[in-house]
Amino acid sequence: MAAEHSPGSTRSTPAGRTAAAGRSWWGWGRTDQALPDSECAALATMIPGLPSAPLPVPDAAALTLAPPRIRVPGSLAHLVSDGTADRAAHTYGKAYRDVVRALHGDLAAAPDLVAFPRTEAELVDLLDWAGTRNAALIPYGGGSSVVGGVEYRGGDHSGVLSLDLSAMDRVLEVDTTSRAARIQAGVLGPALERQLRDHGGGLTLRHFPQSFEFSTLGGWLATRAGGHYATLHTHIDDFVESMRVVTPAGVSESWRLPGSGAGPSPDRLFLGSEGTLGVITEAWMRLQDRPVHKASAAVLFADFADAAEAVRAISQSGLHPANCRLLDPGEAALAGAAQGGDSVLVLGVESAHHPVDGRLAELCALAADHGGRVPASASAPGGGDGDGGPAARDDAVDAWRSAFVRMPYLRDGLARMSAITETFETACTWDRFAGLYEAVRTGTAAAVKEITGSPGLVNCRLTHVYPDGPAPYFTVIAAGRRGREVAMWDEIKSAAMETLGRHGATVTHHHAVGRDHRPGYDRQRPEPFALALRAAKSALDPRGILNPGVLLGSGSPGAG
Amino acid sequence: MAAEHSPGSTRSTPAGRTAAAGRSWWGWGRTDQALPDSECAALATMIPGLPSAPLPVPDAAALTLAPPRIRVPGSLAHLVSDGTADRAAHTYGKAYRDVVRALHGDLAAAPDLVAFPRTEAELVDLLDWAGTRNAALIPYGGGSSVVGGVEYRGGDHSGVLSLDLSAMDRVLEVDTTSRAARIQAGVLGPALERQLRDHGGGLTLRHFPQSFEFSTLGGWLATRAGGHYATLHTHIDDFVESMRVVTPAGVSESWRLPGSGAGPSPDRLFLGSEGTLGVITEAWMRLQDRPVHKASAAVLFADFADAAEAVRAISQSGLHPANCRLLDPGEAALAGAAQGGDSVLVLGVESAHHPVDGRLAELCALAADHGGRVPASASAPGGGDGDGGPAARDDAVDAWRSAFVRMPYLRDGLARMSAITETFETACTWDRFAGLYEAVRTGTAAAVKEITGSPGLVNCRLTHVYPDGPAPYFTVIAAGRRGREVAMWDEIKSAAMETLGRHGATVTHHHAVGRDHRPGYDRQRPEPFALALRAAKSALDPRGILNPGVLLGSGSPGAG
Repeated sequence: MAAEHSPGSTRSTPAGRTAAAGRSWWGWGRTDQALPDSECAALATMIPGLPSAPLPVPDAAALTLAPPRIRVPGSLAHLVSDGTADRAAHTYGKAYRDVVRALHGDLAAAPDLVAFPRTEAELVDLLDWAGTRNAALIPYGGGSSVVGGVEYRGGDHSGVLSLDLSAMDRVLEVDTTSRAARIQAGVLGPALERQLRDHGGGLTLRHFPQSFEFSTLGGWLATRAGGHYATLHTHIDDFVESMRVVTPAGVSESWRLPGSGAGPSPDRLFLGSEGTLGVITEAWMRLQDRPVHKASAAVLFADFADAAEAVRAISQSGLHPANCRLLDPGEAALAGAAQGGDSVLVLGVESAHHPVDGRLAELCALAADHGGRVPASASAPGGGDGDGGPAARDDAVDAWRSAFVRMPYLRDGLARMSAITETFETACTWDRFAGLYEAVRTGTAAAVKEITGSPGLVNCRLTHVYPDGPAPYFTVIAAGRRGREVAMWDEIKSAAMETLGRHGATVTHHHAVGRDHRPGYDRQRPEPFALALRAAKSALDPRGILNPGVLLGSGSPGAG
Repeated sequence: MAAEHSPGSTRSTPAGRTAAAGRSWWGWGRTDQALPDSECAALATMIPGLPSAPLPVPDAAALTLAPPRIRVPGSLAHLVSDGTADRAAHTYGKAYRDVVRALHGDLAAAPDLVAFPRTEAELVDLLDWAGTRNAALIPYGGGSSVVGGVEYRGGDHSGVLSLDLSAMDRVLEVDTTSRAARIQAGVLGPALERQLRDHGGGLTLRHFPQSFEFSTLGGWLATRAGGHYATLHTHIDDFVESMRVVTPAGVSESWRLPGSGAGPSPDRLFLGSEGTLGVITEAWMRLQDRPVHKASAAVLFADFADAAEAVRAISQSGLHPANCRLLDPGEAALAGAAQGGDSVLVLGVESAHHPVDGRLAELCALAADHGGRVPASASAPGGGDGDGGPAARDDAVDAWRSAFVRMPYLRDGLARMSAITETFETACTWDRFAGLYEAVRTGTAAAVKEITGSPGLVNCRLTHVYPDGPAPYFTVIAAGRRGREVAMWDEIKSAAMETLGRHGATVTHHHAVGRDHRPGYDRQRPEPFALALRAAKSALDPRGILNPGVLLGSGSPGAG
């Protein structure tokens, strides 16, 4: 793969970097964590009607991709790879539909080239070149998009360059007085926390999305990721002090400010812009003191509606638990956190400064007021501070946490068995929640039955909660038909999206819009705001080369 | 004034409304609260070198304004006033320079007409008409702008219409489950809270800027006002669930959502847009339970730097006090809250659910750790829940609060004596605060000396604080020269703005940009964001009639 550099050619493996070692090109995470065939088959026995053997995993090196339609000039060649493995791994994100298509060897959307700039100047050169050639440029982040955010879907570009910032992965500066750090956008979660830890000072970003290991700071910012905190500071947005964004019209850098009222927030325009307005290269992020006091509890409810009322009371209490996740009966059973139709509320409190047992007791009392059963053993204060999310000692909490981290690998195992298994998330005000929950469960179950011919599972958990409403997260598991998995999922997803829209629930709380959520997003977004956003896009990216088809446009330059 | 309606004419007093009874046309607030001449003169003895008698207050009815250059068609005539008193009262906001100009009878900038729409449909009609006539349209809010936000300053418009939404002042709907209310933009603070109280349910918006009595919900949203909470939820932004905005390109209404990650936030584009992109007509606002537990304390510090370190520790403690205001020695003395060079830290905690004495004790302990002296009597839990801001029982707290509410009237009294007295506010990260504080105090004092020939007072308080930095609020008092007050203030202000910019401190934390802060704002705003904002403006307000010269442009259509 390591072709010699010659003017006008591209290296297969750019200098100073190798393809992400041990990473799955087709599925979630690390190859050594993927389920072996036997486990895939065993898992599939849960769901009647599936094939008996898993889909084989194609060998990336043996894939045949169309030859690249574009090539960069010699001055940029060392930054770019046209290697099959790199192109295959950068074709899709990690949505269910992405995994299935990769397993079926459907890689028609593969980018022509993958670029790995090491500096902002190199990124600017790549952007300039793409502009002159009308090449689409797709910021890849960590590649964990589950909404078609990193996949080119047509338009009249001359070619497609996937932009991988993994070489820009440093914590550049730490201000321990203001508790903030300047961090490059390409860093993955664990490396970010490791560098903060190495710096000393006991500071942490403490942003732990489920994708933590395999997603980047830049991706979190571009998609308004949801993190560790179930209340108060749920989105990464709140931790942004300033951002630096390379646009085709120039570099935008906001001032480091703890707060400001000077016009509309520049950062808030780029937060959630999903690579359509510019490429985020670094940000000053607000940090936390590493918590030393922690306590958690799992509260059981016989009635889900009671549990939801308990969560509402907690969300409106001003107690701000770090963790406040409610698993409905199906989700609790699937996670092994409860049985017999109980719902489980996982509560966690933490502080770097103060004991938190009293706060946990207040939370448990609120839960008990609403019919929750607080196990005597459940309010043990816990230590430990893992990088992977809330640490806790309670059995139900542990069960939930293991399932949380393991879930994407199970999903891939089931995908190999042609089971349909995917998630979607939303948020709505409390007055609408009961109706939404019922409508999504019954509506999606009906769609599953109609589309797959068999009943499926539709479970729900609340991942984040606000005083004025929860963010429900739905999991759907159903028997697919081999070769028809994607089409079936798309139909189910479309029915679910329609239900969300009908109930005034957002098309996404923290998975972003990408290309998959466009129908719901286009309905939700106020039309004058769409006009403003299109105008901003035209001003910053006049040639329409940045992530075409995401948020705006049809993929063609100039389309709305 | 109440001329009969005839086609093509305008009524002096539109049907269904009278001019704001008891409101000062030239200065702050209510006429019955203004200082009598004798008190003005007595106050002025504090400052050597002032004239012995106050400027007289011109009689609004006796003012001569240029005849209106525009008139509305008969169908709109009942919504519009061309009365001298209405036009005079809508000429300026309430900045020092506005008050002085009004006192000198300088009303060349008076709007041609003042419109009082009662419904959104009427507002749309006015907007459409203004567009066809190239008339500038200036949303007035409550008229409390201190940054030239409501004053026309030229351009090539055919005329100027000041837009007063005071007839759109209702709480339309309350959702007690989600704790939110749909509220019309024209309502003033007290009427808003009164309607919420009348509705029952114990809910409150609890947004108490210093201008509370004389500013509107729409104004708060358009300017990203700073409110009651010194920590955590400082700006009105965080309480917005959805907004409805009338733009020349159509009505924008975001969905009611507790949280969302669907693209850049539409609300965040309109928050802080200061009437340049559209007119906010209503919003769903997140409410709070009315607090029943309150406690407050005033902590004294011999050293201001220690006090600032205490505030930093508190801001980073996760204790989230509702009040955390630090007065430097000059400010404390002026407010009568401390003497002998002490700084005063006013702390307040409150909750609708839980006793708060423990939290106050933790805060006081943190303050004591940094050298604060906590008076034995100071941590008395207080009751009461006034509409005017934090309620408290402590003497120093009371002294500060009285001064806070009374300050604008004192400023006007001093203005009548040709004293220069005005405030500006900012925010910066903690690592820069000590340097900024020193630079603003010495630099502004030097500017005062140079420009006025006498030393002045430059005091500081912290109004809001964040884990990564404070929002300092500076007060300047100096001897002006009659007839030269505005020019002198502008020079002092310009020097201060330059100092802020040099230290990377925002040009405004919650006073907005308006026209007065444009130089600092233009420097602070990233240029690509300016491109995007100009493009958004052109898309939503293609004729450039909305509040020209604020945030963008020079006042002329098409200017950047």
